[in-house]
Amino acid sequence: MKMNQSLSESCREIAVRARRASDGLATVHRDRKDRWLLQSAAALLTLSEAILAANTRDMEAATDLSAANRDRLWLTPERLHGMAEGLRQVAALPDPVGFVREGSVRPNGLEVRKVSVPLGVIFFLYESRPNVTADAAALCVKSGNAVILRGGKEAFHSNTAIYRILSEQLAKCGLPIDAVQLVPTLDRDAVGELLKLKDLIDLAIPRGGESLIRRVVAEATMPVLKHYLGNCHVYVDRAADLDMAERIVLNSKCQRPGVCNAMESLLIHADIAAKFVPRIGASLRERTVEVRGCEITRSYLPSALLATEADHAAEFCDLIVSMKVVSDTESAVDHIRRFGSGHTDAIVTGDLKAAQYFTARVDSAAVLVNASTRFNDGFELGLGAEIGISTDKLHARGPCGLNELTSYKYVVYGEGQVRD
Amino acid sequence: MKMNQSLSESCREIAVRARRASDGLATVHRDRKDRWLLQSAAALLTLSEAILAANTRDMEAATDLSAANRDRLWLTPERLHGMAEGLRQVAALPDPVGFVREGSVRPNGLEVRKVSVPLGVIFFLYESRPNVTADAAALCVKSGNAVILRGGKEAFHSNTAIYRILSEQLAKCGLPIDAVQLVPTLDRDAVGELLKLKDLIDLAIPRGGESLIRRVVAEATMPVLKHYLGNCHVYVDRAADLDMAERIVLNSKCQRPGVCNAMESLLIHADIAAKFVPRIGASLRERTVEVRGCEITRSYLPSALLATEADHAAEFCDLIVSMKVVSDTESAVDHIRRFGSGHTDAIVTGDLKAAQYFTARVDSAAVLVNASTRFNDGFELGLGAEIGISTDKLHARGPCGLNELTSYKYVVYGEGQVRD
Repeated sequence: MKMNQSLSESCREIAVRARRASDGLATVHRDRKDRWLLQSAAALLTLSEAILAANTRDMEAATDLSAANRDRLWLTPERLHGMAEGLRQVAALPDPVGFVREGSVRPNGLEVRKVSVPLGVIFFLYESRPNVTADAAALCVKSGNAVILRGGKEAFHSNTAIYRILSEQLAKCGLPIDAVQLVPTLDRDAVGELLKLKDLIDLAIPRGGESLIRRVVAEATMPVLKHYLGNCHVYVDRAADLDMAERIVLNSKCQRPGVCNAMESLLIHADIAAKFVPRIGASLRERTVEVRGCEITRSYLPSALLATEADHAAEFCDLIVSMKVVSDTESAVDHIRRFGSGHTDAIVTGDLKAAQYFTARVDSAAVLVNASTRFNDGFELGLGAEIGISTDKLHARGPCGLNELTSYKYVVYGEGQVRD
Repeated sequence: MKMNQSLSESCREIAVRARRASDGLATVHRDRKDRWLLQSAAALLTLSEAILAANTRDMEAATDLSAANRDRLWLTPERLHGMAEGLRQVAALPDPVGFVREGSVRPNGLEVRKVSVPLGVIFFLYESRPNVTADAAALCVKSGNAVILRGGKEAFHSNTAIYRILSEQLAKCGLPIDAVQLVPTLDRDAVGELLKLKDLIDLAIPRGGESLIRRVVAEATMPVLKHYLGNCHVYVDRAADLDMAERIVLNSKCQRPGVCNAMESLLIHADIAAKFVPRIGASLRERTVEVRGCEITRSYLPSALLATEADHAAEFCDLIVSMKVVSDTESAVDHIRRFGSGHTDAIVTGDLKAAQYFTARVDSAAVLVNASTRFNDGFELGLGAEIGISTDKLHARGPCGLNELTSYKYVVYGEGQVRD
């Protein structure tokens, strides 16, 4: 960023370069994009020392981070292998650009095709984990989009090292070098400046804590793909297999409690509460999960704290769960509609009617029957990879992979047809 | 609207009622929605006298409208038949709700379906033509959405009469009566109040002039489906069949010059300019079309006015066309990328390479080869009906029909699967 430019001018220049790169990228064939992905994967490993050295600088400066966040920031040779493997996996996915979504010949002979095209320019904002730099660049470029990356300040040196390698390989593969850019300053105002540029940037994707996302939504002039919260529920119905219910509850809560598709609220049918609440309470306690329950929960599980409304609405991202005994499936659905975040909700039941009622009425990005909430994920649902999860209803909902980073256009071939 | 409420309270109440209605509507089976459409079609004809009387009131008040706009406002028994037929056609279309867009069984046995669901609540703003009241309500309700209608003030009595009939039939068919609401005041501030309610309204669709659309985009807190302008191009390539080119140009420009997919700019390859410019110039003059051309155009067609940059960028919506001679397909594409509005652009050519270049590089909602721009239309492209045309890239692009008024959710059935 040149010193004699104002911040707003430099940000506009970044976006103009991205727009120009996206024009070039839109019609590039798959083989060149895949070659870039594979050569970048190789280069990340060949040049791993430079990345690890940059990461060490970040780690040394990150003295005030929590242990969990230090771990997220940390890069190891093994993690670099995972990052490279991620790029190779994206290379293996089908090209989403040029995919014919629908097509028909009209009665008058017009040949109509609805063809996937890139969105254009994506502004991707993320926190902490430096491997997201490579993941996001890979998904954006494979889908024909130019991307402007803005990582967390803790990971700045790591991100820059990774970005440089990706950028070098763009040049080597004959792709527009500005297809991937990293905002070269930590000035927070740069984010606001970029979010103003709706004529140059087609989509903003913030991935991180709720405050980052709220800021982006408040300031963005272009569409934003996002989810605010993942207050995910598991409802254990009267007709549930209780062994299965226990397995699903524990997996949903404990397998990775810090992620957005982890369970935060557990609803239990009153008819099985006397049996299931003490049982699941004991299993959760074994795994050091704190239970905050309703009055009925506490009558079966006296060790539970009393849940407040805020607890029922919370995304704890931690080993805490809110628990409530409900009188029937309808009450469970009402509770989810009131407190849920439209992210991921599951029912455990052997009763088909209850399952159908639940899947029809719960208005969330993913609704599961007899499966862990942790399955709401791009890999698990078959998208191959994801750049994030959306709880919006417009454009894309649920995990967003390569296809969700495209738009489409109608391409129509005729033989001189005109309208009557 | 009760007199003792503030405008903002009344608007919120409308939106709350719409939200509640949308909850009920989301799981209604197709037969009940279709019955409502067919009964409404019948009732529009049975009660046509009331509608025509209301329309007469509007017509009597509309003394300061242009002849064209008076014609748009005017309802006749024949036009009411057309309106009823429109509802019957929507009834005959497939139900977009519950449609499985994709589905698979994952390696671990999870059955994944991506199922179409309604968006929720749609705020639809439109100008003048009262038949749009019935069309928009039909498309929204058929796609399971509640709709808040806000028509033009000129058509207020006509719209209210039509709305009352639709509303009565909702009640008779056991559908939520608030599934269709008409903003019951002409206070312009009501629009601003409703556009604030992003928690209750999922999508705003403005259909009308550019100033209405710009106002909605500026004030809306929810997503907006829209196009600003239709500056549509026809490019007549060197390899064009000139008879076909003439037919397409005249149809694109003259068949209905006031609509968004009419041609506004004509580009002609230099190699055929000496032959084609005088010929098309004469044909356009016969149809009283005013030509504003570049210097080269004028060397072949001295009667043409000199085109300004503003002319090349304009959507005339009238019998005016801007014309430019270009040196090759690349220059034509560059011109369209610079001046176009991303709506509809066509090439006339017999050269496959030129057609492929044009369709790949022109980044518009619809790109046509050897066909009139007038085909960018929901009926013509096979969507059955349309609520509008989008030039946005997110969510929906081009004509928006029933499917574009839906979102989706992932419904996943398992047998107790958890993640490793």
